[in-house]
Amino acid sequence: MNLASTIREVPDFPKEGILFYDITTLLKNPVALKESIDQLTAHYRNLQIDAIAGIESRGFIFGMPLAYQLGVGFLPVRKPGKLPAKTIAESYALEYGTNTLELHVDAVTEGQRILVVDDLLATGGTAQASCKLVERLGGKVVGVTFAIELTFLKGREKLAGYEVFSLMQYDA
Amino acid sequence: MNLASTIREVPDFPKEGILFYDITTLLKNPVALKESIDQLTAHYRNLQIDAIAGIESRGFIFGMPLAYQLGVGFLPVRKPGKLPAKTIAESYALEYGTNTLELHVDAVTEGQRILVVDDLLATGGTAQASCKLVERLGGKVVGVTFAIELTFLKGREKLAGYEVFSLMQYDA
Repeated sequence: MNLASTIREVPDFPKEGILFYDITTLLKNPVALKESIDQLTAHYRNLQIDAIAGIESRGFIFGMPLAYQLGVGFLPVRKPGKLPAKTIAESYALEYGTNTLELHVDAVTEGQRILVVDDLLATGGTAQASCKLVERLGGKVVGVTFAIELTFLKGREKLAGYEVFSLMQYDA
Repeated sequence: MNLASTIREVPDFPKEGILFYDITTLLKNPVALKESIDQLTAHYRNLQIDAIAGIESRGFIFGMPLAYQLGVGFLPVRKPGKLPAKTIAESYALEYGTNTLELHVDAVTEGQRILVVDDLLATGGTAQASCKLVERLGGKVVGVTFAIELTFLKGREKLAGYEVFSLMQYDA
């Protein structure tokens, strides 16, 4: 099936001039939901993934069923103050200001092969910070995967050195 | 397996006097992750669920793999301003102030049988608001399910009239 046909394009969200690709219309379609997870599973099935790091909050949406399908654990990468035990943090620049992500220090063990999952690859700052969190704990980032990639924002350049896979690509 | 043995108990989080039940230690354990989703799937397999409404953000964690396993769609119930298309909103009281949740108006069609999913049943306000959102769109709430239920907070009383199922119960 053509997954992109299930994505709703919303102009001027979250602000004027931005075209937002809405995954909720994919998710409410059982065939598209299954197909998206099956495509991700097929891509990563033989890559000896040990765990999936899913980025709050839409990375949870694609990351958890993929973890289940691959038979591995799931590590939530969260916004500050959400994880209750000892964490490490990484900040990254936004157009205005910075964002911070956290990961429990005991989420990753030395040498584990980790797949980082989010819904959207834009400039790549969020995914890059998540990869750094995994690596600081001794994990190896085996890949970084997304439902949607906005190719014109060149997030792949920021993620150079990582295997990057996306289900759908948009060039505008 | 004993799922509760994989939950980390964190005292004084998010504030003094609160004992926090941390699901991240369950999620990073592949056996526990699989078992939790399999138990939910077994419970709901024959209840003719049409879609799962998962509450941001940890409801996404349990709701999405369950949607995949049941072969149904997934509807994210989100905090204000996150959903890009037309929404309806429900507010509910907290100890101090109120919270609001939103759902796309086209998420549910008349008569659909919806399962509401979150990670934690405390006082039940969040789940109750989510049920109201589903019902306002013409959906029927077939059940409300949680990974963890804090029985001493009597959330089931607030959800009276709904079938409630939880994987783990804590009475303090």
